[in-house]
Amino acid sequence: MANLVRMDLIEKKVRASFAKQGLMSTLGAQMTTVGAGAVEIRCGFDAKLTQQNGFVHAGVITSILDSACGYAALSVAPAGSEVLSVEFKVNLLAPAVGSAFVARALVKRAGKTLTICSADAYAVNADGEKLIATMLATMMNIGAKAS
Amino acid sequence: MANLVRMDLIEKKVRASFAKQGLMSTLGAQMTTVGAGAVEIRCGFDAKLTQQNGFVHAGVITSILDSACGYAALSVAPAGSEVLSVEFKVNLLAPAVGSAFVARALVKRAGKTLTICSADAYAVNADGEKLIATMLATMMNIGAKAS
Amino acid sequence: MANLVRMDLIEKKVRASFAKQGLMSTLGAQMTTVGAGAVEIRCGFDAKLTQQNGFVHAGVITSILDSACGYAALSVAPAGSEVLSVEFKVNLLAPAVGSAFVARALVKRAGKTLTICSADAYAVNADGEKLIATMLATMMNIGAKAS
Amino acid sequence: MANLVRMDLIEKKVRASFAKQGLMSTLGAQMTTVGAGAVEIRCGFDAKLTQQNGFVHAGVITSILDSACGYAALSVAPAGSEVLSVEFKVNLLAPAVGSAFVARALVKRAGKTLTICSADAYAVNADGEKLIATMLATMMNIGAKAS
Repeated sequence: MANLVRMDLIEKKVRASFAKQGLMSTLGAQMTTVGAGAVEIRCGFDAKLTQQNGFVHAGVITSILDSACGYAALSVAPAGSEVLSVEFKVNLLAPAVGSAFVARALVKRAGKTLTICSADAYAVNADGEKLIATMLATMMNIGAKAS
Repeated sequence: MANLVRMDLIEKKVRASFAKQGLMSTLGAQMTTVGAGAVEIRCGFDAKLTQQNGFVHAGVITSILDSACGYAALSVAPAGSEVLSVEFKVNLLAPAVGSAFVARALVKRAGKTLTICSADAYAVNADGEKLIATMLATMMNIGAKAS
Repeated sequence: MANLVRMDLIEKKVRASFAKQGLMSTLGAQMTTVGAGAVEIRCGFDAKLTQQNGFVHAGVITSILDSACGYAALSVAPAGSEVLSVEFKVNLLAPAVGSAFVARALVKRAGKTLTICSADAYAVNADGEKLIATMLATMMNIGAKAS
Repeated sequence: MANLVRMDLIEKKVRASFAKQGLMSTLGAQMTTVGAGAVEIRCGFDAKLTQQNGFVHAGVITSILDSACGYAALSVAPAGSEVLSVEFKVNLLAPAVGSAFVARALVKRAGKTLTICSADAYAVNADGEKLIATMLATMMNIGAKAS
């Protein structure tokens, strides 16, 4: 899908959009990888991101999963498109305990209007990574003609 | 379910737990109502909560929907239980544009182990409220015996 | 939304489409109500619809919930559109035990391209109806221009 | 997980339960593979399984995905447990057009009470298989102690 556009231009567009997300900065999140249909976002542990047990809140993990899915979709969207989240489902598989958290999204099917992504989130610890959550999301391409 | 316990004690427990959620404070969110199986959480607009278009990020709306569902479930859980999110699905119905945002959760079915909640989120504007998102969530009671 | 088209024409279109669903006939399902953005479908108990415990299979309940959501969306879709299911989530709240089962769908938000519906399923027994499942679904309008 | 029980006994239990599902027989579905945490179910095309365009109904694809997830969960459940579906989400990625359909489920995380599965469905055609749907499901172990 991305074969007519140089991947470095796509990465630039994706990273420029990510940089505008005030929430990602508030969460201390960084976009660590951008490929065609594949995006990784990381954030570190911070007490300001917790739920009542001191684990990182499901809403934080969902936020990085959602942004990762959205940008994975954007990386394969028609030129000039923007991407909005239509819906997503998240299963929380283990408490978000770790020094950092990483969300990795992949495009499962890219359509003209809708793109379906799946993403997994991992807690990073001294022993490595542990799967803590998984998302299945529907993203929508908008504005391709207007741009 | 809550009929053997005074609702003011339940509200106290729910509010004490909410106060421990670092993320809710980071988002500027407040718990505005606690009833038996019904919780409302609000947060104001802030540029630090946005996505790339300046709308509030889906992750923020999901965070207050998830906390509202979790505390609605906790308000009807067996004494001594805690509640964790198993999974949720969110449909984003309109951009989160407004001066404030409110999440209202209701228990749809309370079981011994699992509680199912639905919740709607609204953007608050000069003209009133507009439905912007809806969640269907599965919550799990844990630790009733250990407590 | 349906105010420019006579509701009896919409109902006719919806019922004609339903009649073409081979699966609904296989399940013994009937469309019992069609309104603007609201559809009800029913099926009776039959041993050929069961899972391993003799309850009606979640797939059957999902089938009538999905058709009810799709036709609720179709009832408010632009003239000439068809509707396809993009995705749905179902929570199963109680075993599907009863003499009959009814799915009631409502349009939650109708957009130009996507329509979001929620639906509940009930088991019908001598004492009345019991909530057994709930769906949150995304439907897509297609083909309005081509028709 | 299944390492203390001979896999042939587990397969026998899973296949015996599947054989009791009246719906699977009505759909013409067969269980083609049972492994530890991995199950495949197939069904052929039949006009009695269709929606209004002659494609196989999303409810049929969901039914074989759900049974595949349930039995994948059962294959790793504690001895004596049964498994019930708590909830699932399905994204429909392409029309279900083909001579046969196959659902393949994998356990993503097996817990004491809940097991999370993901599953993909494919249409089988002369050229091979095409991905048509994907499920993310939550299953619950029940009755281990009572059995």
